[in-house]
Amino acid sequence: MPRQIPLKEKLTSENDRLAAQIREQLQQHEIFALNFVSSPGSGKTSLLEKTIAALGNSLEIGLIAGDVQTENDAERLTRAGGRMVRPIVTGGACHLDAKMITRVLSEFNLETLDLLFIENVGNLVCPSSFDLGEDMKVVLISTTEGDDKPLKYPGMFRRSSVMVVNKIDLLGTSDFDLERVKKHARQINADLDILELSCRTGDGLDTWLQWLQRRVRKNRPIVA
Amino acid sequence: MPRQIPLKEKLTSENDRLAAQIREQLQQHEIFALNFVSSPGSGKTSLLEKTIAALGNSLEIGLIAGDVQTENDAERLTRAGGRMVRPIVTGGACHLDAKMITRVLSEFNLETLDLLFIENVGNLVCPSSFDLGEDMKVVLISTTEGDDKPLKYPGMFRRSSVMVVNKIDLLGTSDFDLERVKKHARQINADLDILELSCRTGDGLDTWLQWLQRRVRKNRPIVA
Repeated sequence: MPRQIPLKEKLTSENDRLAAQIREQLQQHEIFALNFVSSPGSGKTSLLEKTIAALGNSLEIGLIAGDVQTENDAERLTRAGGRMVRPIVTGGACHLDAKMITRVLSEFNLETLDLLFIENVGNLVCPSSFDLGEDMKVVLISTTEGDDKPLKYPGMFRRSSVMVVNKIDLLGTSDFDLERVKKHARQINADLDILELSCRTGDGLDTWLQWLQRRVRKNRPIVA
Repeated sequence: MPRQIPLKEKLTSENDRLAAQIREQLQQHEIFALNFVSSPGSGKTSLLEKTIAALGNSLEIGLIAGDVQTENDAERLTRAGGRMVRPIVTGGACHLDAKMITRVLSEFNLETLDLLFIENVGNLVCPSSFDLGEDMKVVLISTTEGDDKPLKYPGMFRRSSVMVVNKIDLLGTSDFDLERVKKHARQINADLDILELSCRTGDGLDTWLQWLQRRVRKNRPIVA
């Protein structure tokens, strides 16, 4: 008789199988894919709005906006100039999974896409356990959330490649310490790239856009 | 043959059974219990610190501080003067459940307790589905998170009795609109009590403390 596989293990391995398929498909088309994760209200949608506005004319950007309820984020991204935006309303689920991504990915023209941005549900816990086939997870943290978050939600910071500290214009309005948050984040994940910016004032956005363009170039080797 | 009960249904009904036991136990001892929920960094621990400092001498307050990792919040609450603080480290789980509460509740002296504060994991999604036997859920939202949160995470606002808008000292630093967040919250839950305050400056804290004291009195009928 075959071993009984626990439900959670079964769900994760099914997700991993689908995520691997997505990753292969994206790599075949040289599409660089990022999965944006954070607490609610850290500024994921704002960062994507700014990024679309800056790069939307030179790069083809596909956007998947996940939310528990409402299509507000997808509408904001479309208003910001996003040409290919697909909402996923999870209807209560606390994270996106690879099955949801597979379902909407068929609506994109992968031949022309340079970048795929996936905006996950605002939640610092659950989305960390679900691979969506992305190249990297980008975790946002805002300066109004407290600098202890990497220690308190280590899973997310361990599985992310980049940490974006948003709302640096509000530094000084609380006891949030930029050096302390970096120290805490690197304690959890020594390899983390760290960027600081303010979507509101635009400070630091250039560095983010350069980081992104460099990654796109690396992902798409120049054909002689 | 008995009907096969799906796993999720089984877990919820087991949780509800334990929550009902906790509720009965707390009511027998006339203990008013609140379950604090919010995004990470909205100020749950700060509000509890201020509340302990203000009422800790006149009321016996029990505190349960839930966290994915670290006992930081429990330590902060003890430093703030909390005499009976118990941490629950969920070790990855995204919410507290009634089983965890049952386990630590036996460490409290229920005979002397007036109030029980449960600080849930910072997460606007999952904790909404788990009754902990509390009298009410208090949902915090900070003015730096965006005023669309009640619409985007409706489950939590529907199941809460009170919404505390924290960080009102930072109004004006973003496009967060106090009237809009109230309108959105009442769209989801018309009966929601709404309080506005700043843990940092102390503005509005009096109203919160009065609200709390009134509830404790109501909960503990005067014996002639």
